[in-house]
Amino acid sequence: MLGRSYDREVCSAARALEIAGERWSLLILRDAAFAGVTRFTDFQERLGIAPNVLSARLDHFVAEGLMTATPAPTGYAEYHLTKKGLDFKPAIIALTEWGDRWAAPDGPPIDYEHHHCAGHVSTRLHCDKCGKTPATKDVIARPTTAMESARRRRAASTRTRRARR
Amino acid sequence: MLGRSYDREVCSAARALEIAGERWSLLILRDAAFAGVTRFTDFQERLGIAPNVLSARLDHFVAEGLMTATPAPTGYAEYHLTKKGLDFKPAIIALTEWGDRWAAPDGPPIDYEHHHCAGHVSTRLHCDKCGKTPATKDVIARPTTAMESARRRRAASTRTRRARR
Repeated sequence: MLGRSYDREVCSAARALEIAGERWSLLILRDAAFAGVTRFTDFQERLGIAPNVLSARLDHFVAEGLMTATPAPTGYAEYHLTKKGLDFKPAIIALTEWGDRWAAPDGPPIDYEHHHCAGHVSTRLHCDKCGKTPATKDVIARPTTAMESARRRRAASTRTRRARR
Repeated sequence: MLGRSYDREVCSAARALEIAGERWSLLILRDAAFAGVTRFTDFQERLGIAPNVLSARLDHFVAEGLMTATPAPTGYAEYHLTKKGLDFKPAIIALTEWGDRWAAPDGPPIDYEHHHCAGHVSTRLHCDKCGKTPATKDVIARPTTAMESARRRRAASTRTRRARR
């Protein structure tokens, strides 16, 4: 699992990658979220990945609560995204937008659309205080008290482990 | 490279993952974008990754135009994000938000802040037509004409390759 290597990281982006950052994971979530794919064979056909890899990814999503596996009349399981899984949609849209801007010489291959009015959907940065859309360069990251507590706990557990040796 | 396996994919999210989806890549971009890290040794110390892996990731970012490497007075290169690299910030923020909601039991360890007013910055979905923030479940994906052209080209090149055999 990718996650093991990120254990040092007190960061929610790292935690998201622990769960959905393995090879193919986000594309499986994309097909489930935007193309309504639910069946093992349909994921396999669309993505062209090895069955053992696909199986491991789907099992992982079920274990992490991003998907449920339900027996279908065919005998095979069907995979449905939970709220936790569907909630990856904005991150997938944001990644798509980067690709559209920087790696789609023929134009965006996919358009994200609002089901109710058929309008184009995009992600925007929003500042809760001034209400503006901040320029990317004007967004900075500040550690919170949760970060400080996590660092203190981590330092304490390192000291405990050392004392036990 | 992760990208090789995604070659079948006509999708900007897949293309973004080709470039920044390898293990550690997004965390390197995160540290460069939000913590102002520029030096090899600083990336290594913060992330605790093997020098050969870090070196491969940074070289890849330079080759893809996400970073520039400039010789520093110390003799070591310094790595600076280009506009293309900085443009990953919204996707990193969106991933962080997922992790904050679903994998941060002690609360968000990082707060994204608007430099000008110190307000909290978040990502929002926005519909260009009705101006609303669509619910995640109401966003659908539609293939564009660029997707159709890419599929036709792909089918034609498959036929040509087969005819040459």
